[in-house]
Amino acid sequence: MLKTAADNLRVRRYRKGWILMDLIDTTLSMDRWEDLIHDAETGVVSEPLENVYRKRGTAFDVIFVGGGAGGRFGSAYAQARGLRQLVIDKWPFLGGSCPHQACVPHHLFSEAAREMDYMRWNSDTLWFPKFEEERASIVDMITLFKKGRNNAHAFMNWQSKEQLDMEYILNAEAIVIDKHTVEVNGERFTTQSLVLATGTRTHFPPEIAGLDKAGVYDFATLIDPGLDYEPTSCVIIGGSKVAMEYGSFFQATGCHTTILTRSALMRTESLHHVDEDLRTYVVDNMRLRGMDIIEGCEPLEVVGDDRAAGVLVRLADGTEEVIETDFVFIGTGERPNTKPYVDALGIEVDKKGFVKVNSRMQTSVEGVYAIGDLIGSPMEMFKARKCGMTAARNISGEAFEFDFTEFPDFLHTTYEVTWVGLTEQEARDAYGDISVIQMPPKGIRHEELSLPLAEGSMLYGFTRPELTGFQKCIYDNKSRRLLGAHHCGFGAKDAFQYLDHLIKKGITIDEMGEMNELFLNPEHFIQLSRLRAGNPDLQDL
Amino acid sequence: MLKTAADNLRVRRYRKGWILMDLIDTTLSMDRWEDLIHDAETGVVSEPLENVYRKRGTAFDVIFVGGGAGGRFGSAYAQARGLRQLVIDKWPFLGGSCPHQACVPHHLFSEAAREMDYMRWNSDTLWFPKFEEERASIVDMITLFKKGRNNAHAFMNWQSKEQLDMEYILNAEAIVIDKHTVEVNGERFTTQSLVLATGTRTHFPPEIAGLDKAGVYDFATLIDPGLDYEPTSCVIIGGSKVAMEYGSFFQATGCHTTILTRSALMRTESLHHVDEDLRTYVVDNMRLRGMDIIEGCEPLEVVGDDRAAGVLVRLADGTEEVIETDFVFIGTGERPNTKPYVDALGIEVDKKGFVKVNSRMQTSVEGVYAIGDLIGSPMEMFKARKCGMTAARNISGEAFEFDFTEFPDFLHTTYEVTWVGLTEQEARDAYGDISVIQMPPKGIRHEELSLPLAEGSMLYGFTRPELTGFQKCIYDNKSRRLLGAHHCGFGAKDAFQYLDHLIKKGITIDEMGEMNELFLNPEHFIQLSRLRAGNPDLQDL
Repeated sequence: MLKTAADNLRVRRYRKGWILMDLIDTTLSMDRWEDLIHDAETGVVSEPLENVYRKRGTAFDVIFVGGGAGGRFGSAYAQARGLRQLVIDKWPFLGGSCPHQACVPHHLFSEAAREMDYMRWNSDTLWFPKFEEERASIVDMITLFKKGRNNAHAFMNWQSKEQLDMEYILNAEAIVIDKHTVEVNGERFTTQSLVLATGTRTHFPPEIAGLDKAGVYDFATLIDPGLDYEPTSCVIIGGSKVAMEYGSFFQATGCHTTILTRSALMRTESLHHVDEDLRTYVVDNMRLRGMDIIEGCEPLEVVGDDRAAGVLVRLADGTEEVIETDFVFIGTGERPNTKPYVDALGIEVDKKGFVKVNSRMQTSVEGVYAIGDLIGSPMEMFKARKCGMTAARNISGEAFEFDFTEFPDFLHTTYEVTWVGLTEQEARDAYGDISVIQMPPKGIRHEELSLPLAEGSMLYGFTRPELTGFQKCIYDNKSRRLLGAHHCGFGAKDAFQYLDHLIKKGITIDEMGEMNELFLNPEHFIQLSRLRAGNPDLQDL
Repeated sequence: MLKTAADNLRVRRYRKGWILMDLIDTTLSMDRWEDLIHDAETGVVSEPLENVYRKRGTAFDVIFVGGGAGGRFGSAYAQARGLRQLVIDKWPFLGGSCPHQACVPHHLFSEAAREMDYMRWNSDTLWFPKFEEERASIVDMITLFKKGRNNAHAFMNWQSKEQLDMEYILNAEAIVIDKHTVEVNGERFTTQSLVLATGTRTHFPPEIAGLDKAGVYDFATLIDPGLDYEPTSCVIIGGSKVAMEYGSFFQATGCHTTILTRSALMRTESLHHVDEDLRTYVVDNMRLRGMDIIEGCEPLEVVGDDRAAGVLVRLADGTEEVIETDFVFIGTGERPNTKPYVDALGIEVDKKGFVKVNSRMQTSVEGVYAIGDLIGSPMEMFKARKCGMTAARNISGEAFEFDFTEFPDFLHTTYEVTWVGLTEQEARDAYGDISVIQMPPKGIRHEELSLPLAEGSMLYGFTRPELTGFQKCIYDNKSRRLLGAHHCGFGAKDAFQYLDHLIKKGITIDEMGEMNELFLNPEHFIQLSRLRAGNPDLQDL
């Protein structure tokens, strides 16, 4: 066997016939973690990577099956509360699909999309050279991502061990035997409570034929095994966030992209509180970049012999046509694989297979919890992590409930799009007497005004004012409370987390107006609110 | 006379011998406002632009002398509270120096700096062509800014008139006769209360010889009349925010920049709560981009015959040398011109000339208020605007105090740098038992870790991890309250406004951990806090 990172560790141990790599007494540097994960991914190391205090035995207070966002945060919380926890993942790292195939590559690709877009609009002006489309490669970005992703994986393993003192077994499948028993690598571990956290995968709609053809990808297969050719065009089936985000990236590279969607974009069931003005600005800007967005259609089949050559679609008017392409991307949502748990535990699932839980993350079987994407929408990081925390708190004896019906949301096109709380229409329906503060204000067209303006849109403000973004916040005139906020631009995403908290706390326009803005701020809510806060009777702005 | 925008208005009026352009009954579009401002700036229109309800007479509840941020926001608040207000500005637009010469061009230049930096680091890789330094022109950016700035001016005139119903006179100097009388264009207006809001200008230190030479600029003269050559290098006198921000831009264009500063950067009296780890990361990164930062020195003289050829400086070791340059930029702070008010009103000023006020913005003379930069540091937008609001509230009869001792702060290099609350050292001194949550964590070097990671740093995460930024937040272990937050990266500025509010409200790590993050968020405070919040005894992370 070659000398590998694993050999260098010299911590290979044999115990009761099981082969594993025992890391509990070893502190690995970031570099060595990266090497070890690489060896595990390439099959050089096939043994489980184990960080377990064996001297304490194999009985746990809680076992998390799945070490993604929910399993890891739940484990951290359980550990902090004094529970003995174990988290098990089939991958050789904690953190799950986000840093491996999902939100991290999406963010990298969305940054590339934003940057390519910026360089295109400014091509051959100022300090910008002519944009060279032939250099803009999807494959290069995938390669770059795959080359670097183990760094974040290494960090999460390091942090979970060295800082959070979690116990974990990685690079090994967990088999749930019963609600108190989990088998890993042929060995059984017992537990008081069990938390299921194994996530979802892309749903390939069975009614669409040909999805198994070469040239058909989803966000996961785009990375592993990975797209290995530069497509000449792309057709996206579905109108989800994933469709908008990856589609905007493909288009930005010069790969002409068509989105086929049943519902209008951002009017899907899975996205709530999407303001119509925001939606219009976002979708108009996708079209302005050259994307084709075909709404109200029904994709029927991926056509082609051995590989995808086009998508047959029934249009809104009932006619059918084939849109030719060598690259089909599926953005139709995700489904879990919960059959093993139903079989082993008898837990209840809904008709799509998502595990049914209450607000304490308890399943229908006492002592068994489920968290994260496995329980359904929203499939967002905050929910996964807080589900984990909620399960841990309940297992530790605290009656803690998590209501995730209201939350801030975002997506990327070549912009960051963020929203929280009620839309203008929802606010009007619920409260009647409201004030809307927006930029540009009603009656002024985007082309006329360089505002809103802040980091990321400054240059547009002086070259193409219509590209600087759109923003709106809404107040209830009676209580003067902030009801909702909506933003398309750059740099406001971080703030929307706190706006969500403040809206829930009942922040008023008067309190907003007394905050200390950092000018120019990406959303101009504080100062615009102040311009109106002096009025006993609120008005639009 | 040529046919101009002003002629097209057909609203020129003559009244009692005074010539002015009466706009009160006219609604101008954005375009027409832009034309009118342009005509005023170029001298085609020399008359005052007046938006005054003449039929209500010339007696006001409050007159704001100066229509910058403070005067405009104060006017909006006064108007909303039912006071009759008048605001007067010598420029043909409201909004003051910020959109004309200060924060807006600074933001445009800082965006250019960030973008040039990004394109340099990635030069000739991925989709980035080779960075062409010869295209990166300071003059081009100034020209671009000047060409577009009237749009924001137009908007503020439009908004102040059409939405906020303010009364104003622009393009006319206000002369304060006494505390109840202001003269404009030869006509006298009377008022119950007077608010002084005429700002500051760059302080050219008299002890430094040669600052009147050609080739010496400050932020204002850089724009008007404007730098009209491409300098081969730059020497900045002073270590203020302006020095760091403009210096980073000049350097990014390829104009090698040297900062001469007495105090270490970010350790000046005017910046408080600068965490040492943050400072180190920021300054190290300026040097990494090739800037020379000479601390502890004393600039003595701008040398050269008719124009600047270098700066004579006494170094920290006492030796003197000339640093050759054809471009000297002054970043030594600002001073007000308050002598006319002292003469006319007898108000008290401090030894630098700043007007003394109490927390209600009242000067030593009853009925006279002063706001904004005129009263001293911090010379920030939030303070100017809230001073205006504070004066208006007090004039309207509300006893309202404004304490601006604690506020969030930021500056640009090629990064956004933001901070609020206590530094680690201040927190340790004040509370003893604290927890520090930071990224990268203590013990991991920037080169080892691709985190922190979010929009703006994603590509660096996969190419140059040491450039992704730095962040830290600090909790008091006893109360579990957030004490301070510090960030260098991109996209967190907006959030720091709300963090300031939340810190003042006493937000705890437990509340932070229960917020809904939008992953990947530029500062990772919510999720990192959650990883520790389960602990009864807080610890570092």
